[in-house]
This record gives sequence, structure tokens and C-alpha cells, in this order.
Amino acid sequence: MFNIAVAQSGGPTAAINSSLAGVFCEALNSPEIDKIYGSINGIEGILKDELVDLKKILTTDYDIDLLMKTPSTVLGSCRFKLKSSAEDDSDYRKAAATFEKYGIKAFFYIGGNDSMDTVMKLDRWFKENNIDIKVVGVPKTIDNDVMATDHTPGFGSAAKYVATSMQEIIRDSRVYSIPSVTIVEIMGRDAGWLTASSCVLRANGEPAPHMIYLPEAEFSIEKFLDDIRTAQKKYKAVIIAVSEGIRFDDEKYLSSGFSSELTDAFGHKYLSGVGKYLEKIAGANIGCKVRSIELNVMQRCSSHIASLTDITEAKEIGAAAVKAALGGKSGVMMIFKRISNNPYRVEILSADIEGIANKEKFFPSEWINSKGNNVTVDALNYFLPLIQGEPKIEYKNGIPVHFRLNQ
Amino acid sequence: MFNIAVAQSGGPTAAINSSLAGVFCEALNSPEIDKIYGSINGIEGILKDELVDLKKILTTDYDIDLLMKTPSTVLGSCRFKLKSSAEDDSDYRKAAATFEKYGIKAFFYIGGNDSMDTVMKLDRWFKENNIDIKVVGVPKTIDNDVMATDHTPGFGSAAKYVATSMQEIIRDSRVYSIPSVTIVEIMGRDAGWLTASSCVLRANGEPAPHMIYLPEAEFSIEKFLDDIRTAQKKYKAVIIAVSEGIRFDDEKYLSSGFSSELTDAFGHKYLSGVGKYLEKIAGANIGCKVRSIELNVMQRCSSHIASLTDITEAKEIGAAAVKAALGGKSGVMMIFKRISNNPYRVEILSADIEGIANKEKFFPSEWINSKGNNVTVDALNYFLPLIQGEPKIEYKNGIPVHFRLNQ
Repeated sequence: MFNIAVAQSGGPTAAINSSLAGVFCEALNSPEIDKIYGSINGIEGILKDELVDLKKILTTDYDIDLLMKTPSTVLGSCRFKLKSSAEDDSDYRKAAATFEKYGIKAFFYIGGNDSMDTVMKLDRWFKENNIDIKVVGVPKTIDNDVMATDHTPGFGSAAKYVATSMQEIIRDSRVYSIPSVTIVEIMGRDAGWLTASSCVLRANGEPAPHMIYLPEAEFSIEKFLDDIRTAQKKYKAVIIAVSEGIRFDDEKYLSSGFSSELTDAFGHKYLSGVGKYLEKIAGANIGCKVRSIELNVMQRCSSHIASLTDITEAKEIGAAAVKAALGGKSGVMMIFKRISNNPYRVEILSADIEGIANKEKFFPSEWINSKGNNVTVDALNYFLPLIQGEPKIEYKNGIPVHFRLNQ
Repeated sequence: MFNIAVAQSGGPTAAINSSLAGVFCEALNSPEIDKIYGSINGIEGILKDELVDLKKILTTDYDIDLLMKTPSTVLGSCRFKLKSSAEDDSDYRKAAATFEKYGIKAFFYIGGNDSMDTVMKLDRWFKENNIDIKVVGVPKTIDNDVMATDHTPGFGSAAKYVATSMQEIIRDSRVYSIPSVTIVEIMGRDAGWLTASSCVLRANGEPAPHMIYLPEAEFSIEKFLDDIRTAQKKYKAVIIAVSEGIRFDDEKYLSSGFSSELTDAFGHKYLSGVGKYLEKIAGANIGCKVRSIELNVMQRCSSHIASLTDITEAKEIGAAAVKAALGGKSGVMMIFKRISNNPYRVEILSADIEGIANKEKFFPSEWINSKGNNVTVDALNYFLPLIQGEPKIEYKNGIPVHFRLNQ
């Protein structure tokens, strides 16, 4: 009998709580495991001794069901980067003390690339110091940019939201008799997966978005304006999907003039404004109505239009992490391996964290068309299975019911 | 036996096609009516002789069902203001010619305040010229600012989207351990109904949004910053709903410096940027993370999270318009009269268009709290019935299926 802890880190998604539910349910059903602790605000909760007893919080099947459909992180999150232990091992010793105090023998960290840095460093330090605590990563990010795994939990729901909203924006853009250009800005600082996923509308015969611009392709204003003029020959209402992270040829962020110049703990710039910027340029050069729309945080937290495939897989990969730790694994992240597209089948395996932490998986260049302004059918086939199915949402007073740890 | 025509005008909503379905189905079941024409791009289609035979387009119950759940206007829309007939009656004569050519004896115009101007003017001119064509308005607007009716079709669905997204944004805003301010900008140029409707979350015990700023209340930057500081004493993550149309005391648009200075055919300014503007001011004065989110056109076209009450009523009020015209009425708009809140009951009546066209119904000042930064429980009770129920959405390839007249 031993105890475990689980924490959530990085940006919110619609599926990160489902992975928490997966860890919890598997641990609950594992006779080896006694207490299941949740750490508040990611690793910060471990360092500050802020843990909650999840068995006292998640007491019914209804709680679990609700948790799986609640966006963002019920345990809170953080953007905390552990210092190198060679430089300063005080946080490592704090973590070890908390783990010892609560009898925690396995720690599960649900997060993206940056969070896997924490998994790697903790695991290394425990091994170096002969402390037997398993550390296992559970992937999550709407960016889908984590190495080794076919895709990440949270991505499918974000893609379903983007596709659904994009289709509604397309309807909205076609109402008037005058020509127009609509630019939809989609999240993705360095990787264009989510922007690229807007191609799924093609499966239902919808030709828009007519252009898709990704950080992985070269972008120039001149080509952008040419692309619009070409599309306008065929379409009255031209629809464009653009990643917030598109770059000029010189590799500088296009939007740098518009960003707030703030950076987070990992040195990432906070971006915003690519859509607005392109709107101004197109408006000045094309001579028709141009508007831009930023999908903003709704694309990462819209659980009311989540993908059932995503939510289900997110729970399964959380559960698999517990099994892996019980099987002796540590310093790994759980991954999806795609077996087939049709029928869609995945296996859940684990992969060494060293090849994952602090790395990014980019959208494949072979899935970008030769003009660099759209994606291929291979991309469509990759994305489609990930957005299938809809969780049954419970409504109270006409509003989806969320699980709430506290106000 | 005679023919009718129907058109859609003004900004898109999630319910305007449901009103079209209501007109169509009632006409189909009326033995007096033969052909049912749809006018492309509102009144423009009548003037340009661009009509479609709706019986050839809407051929099955499935078509009707899909149409009701498709956002925006399948017939297209316009922002066209008829000149005064005293000044220039050429468009009136064009309209009369089209009606005569197609044997159209009744015309149904689905739209907002401005569209009712067209209903009023056409009806007056027909009466003045002893032409027996009935003209009946069917209200629609997410702004809910149409006189004489308790509420407008399209509003309930927009309010349900706003409430659902606001709750998800609230979840998203609470993840980190640091204080933050989130400003959500909501549509409403002059009337604050939609922004006010974000209060519905209270029905489920959610205290946010902590402040609600409407065009109908006085607004000052100083008070705004004070309100934030007061809210921060109680809440780590302060959430603010703000209407795009809030004004300084001097009645000038707050965001005038940020608007594009463009105006539409009715002289309305295109607004944008109130949220961004307040974000900058709060960021500079409050000293914590501040972000703004614009819900943009998604709030008017998100049929995937439409209100079933709204969609159902939108169809019923369209059907009632046909009955009214058959009963000899013209120069009227159909209205909802609320009989009771609990159980929710409405009657559909008609009202003289003269008291409606070009007027605006503002959010009642008695429903605004004394501080001018939130709304009362009367507002909550008014809004709640309008967002109840969810239409069953059909998905294909994981994406909602829309009815499409053409690409």
C-alpha cells in the first residue's frame, strides 16, 4: 500500500480534467494504492505542501462524469520551470520532503512540452539520489506539438471547436452580396496543427477555409495578397485560417510589433494580433470588406463542443499512466500510437521522457501544399478521427454544469 | 390562390432561418397560398428580381429540420435602406413590379429595427397607391432591442452562447495562482441586453461576471478601476462583461479612437476595441495580468449551442406572420407578449409597425444596480426562460450539418 499524487500544468484544455479522472479512477481500482492526492497549481502545490485528498472530493460516479466534461484544470495550473538541480536543488529537496511526508510513491504530471521538463528533472534527481518515486507524464495540449505521441489529449476537442466555429463563421460571412475577406486567427505559437485542422470541413464538402497559413510554411505579405486575389475570382466571401505564430521569411514573428513583449517563464512571447495585422494590410490593399476574428481562449476551453474521442482517450491515457507506474516505469510519458485510420485504432504505450521534454513536434512539411497556403488530404485523414463523437452534456438552467472544486 | 415572398435582412442570428422555416411551413399548409418565393439578399432580391422557388429547395422534413439549426441567412441578407418615396419612389415601383410579375400578395420581412423601416415604408406606399399587398415584419436580432415585443428571436441563442462561453472563460481564468482580470467584450451597440444576459450564471451559483457594464449606465474609467480593486479583495480572478457600446458620461463612444470610423447605410458606426482599450487601461493601472476577449461574430451564429426555446419560438412567430397576413393584417410586426415567467408562457400578437421601425428598446434602468456595474434579479428572471433547452444537432464527420442553398 502506498499513496500517489497527481497535478495539472500548463495551459487549460477541455480534456485535462478527463486525464485527471483517468488517473483517479485507475488508482481507486488499484489495491496497491491507498491515498490519491491532488496537488494545487501543478508542481507548486508539491513545493508549497498544498495537497488535497481527491477521494474526499470525487466521491461519486456523477462527480467523475462531470469532471470529465469540465474544461480547464480543477486543481489549478502553473507555468513553473524547475531550476537545474546542479545549480540549485532546493526545490527538489522540497518535493522529496512533501512526497515523503505524504507517503507518495508515484507522481503523475499532466501537461505539455514544458511540463515534461519537470517530469524529466524530477525523475533524474530521484534516480540520482536513490529515491524510489515513480514520475510519469501524461500529455496534454491543444497545440498537439508533443514528441513521440501521435496526438495529444485536448487537441481533438480544440479542433472540433475550431471546425464548428469556423463553419458558423463561414455561414456568417456569406450573407451579404458584397465581396469580403474573413481572417480567423487560431492558436499555435510554433506549431500549426490546430490551424491546419480547420481543413476537416472539406470532409463535408465545404471548400473554405480557402487558405490555411501555418508557422511551418514560409509566409510573405505579397503572396498573401496574391492568394486573396486568386481566391476572389472563385469565391465572393474568402475565408482564411491563420496561425498566431506565422513568420516572415526572416524567422521573426510577424506580429512582433503587436505583441505585448511579455514572455512567460519559458521565454515564450505572448502573441496576439496577427489577424488584426493582416486585416489592416488586406483592407488597405484589396479594397473590399475585411474582418479578422480571434478564436482566443474559447478554442482551448470549449468543453460544450468537446470531442468524445478526445475526452475518452484523455481518461484512458491517464489510467494507463497509473498502470505504467505500478509496472515500475518512471521517467516516461504515455503516448498514443496510431494503428489505423479506418477503422480508427490507437494503442497506448510509454516513451522515454528524454526525447520529449522541451522539444516540439511540428506539422509535417509533406502535408503542406506546394504553394504553402493549404494542407493535403493526408492531413485531413489524420485529423478526422480525432474530432468524432460528442459527450452528453448536462444542462442546468440552460447552462452546462461544471464540476467545481471551489469558487 | 396567391403567392407570397419572404426575405431575411440585417445581421445574422442562429434563429433567423427558423423563422424562415416557420413562414414556409405555415404557407405550405395554407390552401390559399400557392407559390412561396424566397428573395435573395433581403429586399435587394425583390428590387433585382432575384427570387427562388422555396418549394423546390425545401423538399423534405429533413430540409426543414436542418434549416432550423443552420445559422445566418440561407437567403442572404442586406443592409439596404429604402429612400423616402416622396423623394424617390423608383424602388417602390420596382418592388411593386416584381410582386405583380410573380403574383405575390404578401411579403414577409425577417429582420431588426432597420428592416422594419422597410416594412413600414412598403406598407405605407402600397396603401397610398391602393395596391393590396400585405407586408408583415418578423422580428430578429441578437440585440433584443426591438420595440413592442418582449424579446426577439435570435437573442435567446446568443445569450445561451454568451453564458456557455463566459462560464468556460471563467474556468480558464481561474487556473493560475496569480491575480488576474479578464474583460469579455459582448455585442450591443446601443442596447446592453446581451451583455446583461451574462448574469444568468448566477442561477447556477456562479458569482462571475463580477461586473457588467452596459451602454445604458454611466461609465467612467475611474469607477471602472475602483470596481476592479474592490472585486480583487474577494476574487483572485476578476471577470468583467462589457458591452461594445459603453459610453463616457459625455455620450461619446468610448472606443471611438479605436473604431474604424466606417458607418453602415443606417449611419451606425462599426465598433470594435472597447475590450482591448479597457485591457490597456487596467493593465497600466492595476498591476496584474489583464486580458480581453472579444466574442465576435460567434455570439450571433453559434447554432451548435442554440436555445431550443429560441429556435422553436422563431419558427412559431414566422408561422404566426403568415396567419396574420391571411387574416388581412399589414403594416405590422409580430411580437411576443410574456404571460408568465414560471411557468414560462408567451402569446404571439401583432403590433403596428409605426411604433417599432427605427426605434430601439433599451435595457431597463430599473434593472441596473445602484452602482451601475451590474444587473438585478429581475433581469435574471427575465433572461432565464429564453436560454432553455438544446436542439438535437446532427453531426457528420464530427461536424454539425448545415443546410446550404449553395456554396
